[in-house]
Amino acid sequence: MDIKHYMQELGQLARSSAGLMARATTAQKNKALIAIAENINKQRSILIKANEEDLKLAQEKKLDTALLDRLVLTEARIDDMSEGLNQIANLADPIGIITDLAMRPSGIQVGNMRVPLGVVGIIYESRPNVTADAAGLCLKSGNATILRGGSEALNSNQAIAECIHKGLVAADLPREAVQVISTVDRAAVGELLRMSKYVDVIVPRGGKSLIERVSSEARMPVIKHLDGICHVYIDSNADIDKAARIALNAKTQRYGTCNTMECLLIADSIAADVLDKLAPLYKAAGVEIRGCKASAKLLNDIKLATEEDYATEYLAPILSLKIVHDVDEAMQHIAKYGSQHTDAIVTENLTTARRFLREVDSSSVIVNASTRFADGFEYGLGAEIGISTDKFHARGPVGLEGLTSKKYIVLGDGHIRT
Amino acid sequence: MDIKHYMQELGQLARSSAGLMARATTAQKNKALIAIAENINKQRSILIKANEEDLKLAQEKKLDTALLDRLVLTEARIDDMSEGLNQIANLADPIGIITDLAMRPSGIQVGNMRVPLGVVGIIYESRPNVTADAAGLCLKSGNATILRGGSEALNSNQAIAECIHKGLVAADLPREAVQVISTVDRAAVGELLRMSKYVDVIVPRGGKSLIERVSSEARMPVIKHLDGICHVYIDSNADIDKAARIALNAKTQRYGTCNTMECLLIADSIAADVLDKLAPLYKAAGVEIRGCKASAKLLNDIKLATEEDYATEYLAPILSLKIVHDVDEAMQHIAKYGSQHTDAIVTENLTTARRFLREVDSSSVIVNASTRFADGFEYGLGAEIGISTDKFHARGPVGLEGLTSKKYIVLGDGHIRT
Repeated sequence: MDIKHYMQELGQLARSSAGLMARATTAQKNKALIAIAENINKQRSILIKANEEDLKLAQEKKLDTALLDRLVLTEARIDDMSEGLNQIANLADPIGIITDLAMRPSGIQVGNMRVPLGVVGIIYESRPNVTADAAGLCLKSGNATILRGGSEALNSNQAIAECIHKGLVAADLPREAVQVISTVDRAAVGELLRMSKYVDVIVPRGGKSLIERVSSEARMPVIKHLDGICHVYIDSNADIDKAARIALNAKTQRYGTCNTMECLLIADSIAADVLDKLAPLYKAAGVEIRGCKASAKLLNDIKLATEEDYATEYLAPILSLKIVHDVDEAMQHIAKYGSQHTDAIVTENLTTARRFLREVDSSSVIVNASTRFADGFEYGLGAEIGISTDKFHARGPVGLEGLTSKKYIVLGDGHIRT
Repeated sequence: MDIKHYMQELGQLARSSAGLMARATTAQKNKALIAIAENINKQRSILIKANEEDLKLAQEKKLDTALLDRLVLTEARIDDMSEGLNQIANLADPIGIITDLAMRPSGIQVGNMRVPLGVVGIIYESRPNVTADAAGLCLKSGNATILRGGSEALNSNQAIAECIHKGLVAADLPREAVQVISTVDRAAVGELLRMSKYVDVIVPRGGKSLIERVSSEARMPVIKHLDGICHVYIDSNADIDKAARIALNAKTQRYGTCNTMECLLIADSIAADVLDKLAPLYKAAGVEIRGCKASAKLLNDIKLATEEDYATEYLAPILSLKIVHDVDEAMQHIAKYGSQHTDAIVTENLTTARRFLREVDSSSVIVNASTRFADGFEYGLGAEIGISTDKFHARGPVGLEGLTSKKYIVLGDGHIRT
């Protein structure tokens, strides 16, 4: 069978199982999730064996060590997969929830019911645990799923898929509700992105080049996350202790995450005091500072920041720094160089905080807390399929609700329109 | 200036005014809306004169009478435009509303704030009143707007644009917050659909060919409404009086609207009784019935329905009819032939009603009321920019909220992530 027909068949099966998934009861979905968690737990020797094949092939192909690290399924990662599925089973089922049911002057009662999106396509890279995580979230939200993992994780993903299929069948749900593409042919991705008849939304999870390819080729909506160029602005009315604590945490708690601060802005009137406290802390943590001219006068051993620095997501122990006059200049800088991901202000002034919250156009806007909080778990979503930097449909961390839609429901008693 | 540069400049101006619109106060936006309503009211002789030029040119081009009817600005239509803007001023401002602000175990407080989408592009056909309606909705929801009306309404639209610009300026808002494309060059539409950098969403309002072109060419999300092939299913447990009243109203209250019933499904056990009552009512209203074989046995003077009939949005006094065994067969028919717009059931059985509400995958699902209620005003949205048959972002009638997004806001007191 050629790749086009293979993918079309996959798409048709996904579409037909989507209807069954939309009607599945909460008890059925939870039963499946718990069964999948158990299967993954019990079949761990099979999973590890499949993963060893992938690792062997990856080593033969001399893939880099960062990739090998993401690819490996350790006992701890298998525990996490299984535990993650049990956690999803414990989350409230969003499907069928009715809200805002209100009487209208005509006598009809109008409300909204939450429903699944339909078929979710997920394209990801080397981490095989995404297979279980993504399948679990789509299952709980009543969607059918087509998963396309990295070609280097093929054996691991197929072994996980086996666990998923057995769990679905144990709960009387269609095994085609979760399909894992079993070919390494790269043309499969192109086909998937064209199947708008069968796929309602695509979620790419991976590096920038993957996301850019998916965004430009997909014929259906994409829930995507591009750069995270996050700022902290320390206002003239900031509490200096809080400011230093937040600025240190936002940069150094983890370097490689999208909600890590990449640029620190400080009001000129408070800059010397803040940097007195903060610069030694960054130095101790091994953070390189690249600053504006004014900051270089205060810190004599720093590099000057270029235009490119301010537009860069370092994902590394490097920080760009700029001294600004006030909140207006800070917000102008954020609007120009930011990526509308997460930006924070440190201030004790209520009016300034209210302005920043209202005027900064980012998916998370934070007052007096670290940018590192911008995360589905921290926000109480229970789980996260990704972070959206778009404004359409879902914005910021995307949990179960981002995989759903709403429909209007109307209840009458023989009402007609006059 | 060539068309590409003209459109790019328009886009840049829209983008830069979107930031100002997002920060505009409710008072400013309402002041602008009321001023525009007044301007339209006072400048009616100028509007009518501009419209007469359009009508003269349209007559010279021998455009059809239906189009001429949509194009004409009567005194009553000018009253409606002005009144519509005052109504939008009276609606609650969705922007800045904070919801679900809750404490998290970490101590931070997390909620959502409603924000504008940014720049909304609207492409419509001959009705000049859309210029005022659409501008009003986008203005109230804090968006900048680029409007592209029908070329045959150019003079009317430019005259209305004058009223809008004066109103914006009177409220200290940027006049570029609403831009009406002033060229009839058809290439402008193609340029607009490519400007994803400057336009966040496109709303096409018009016939099927316009919507299909926009959907296939747009590089940004589209809020669109395709067919309305709406069904009423009369269940075996229906109240026959309610059933007849609803089925008559759903078909005959207006023929040309998207929420008009196009296909009636009746459970076999109740079909003879229902049709005894209903068939004479349809006959009196001049509705032609095209039915299945079983229905032709009950109604001896009807045409047989073809497969194509069941897939057709007649927008005319024609009704397709099918006798089905039960709610399962009805829902299968709706899934196969429907357009996921609006479908209704008439039943007194609670379990059947609950199943229909949950399982029918349409933007409006109705129990014991006419499909004609599927409308932004009837649902209490206050106004309607269109009806969406998509599931992503907005579904069903789209009011102010459909032109907005949400961002996460986080409030802390020096909180860091550990």
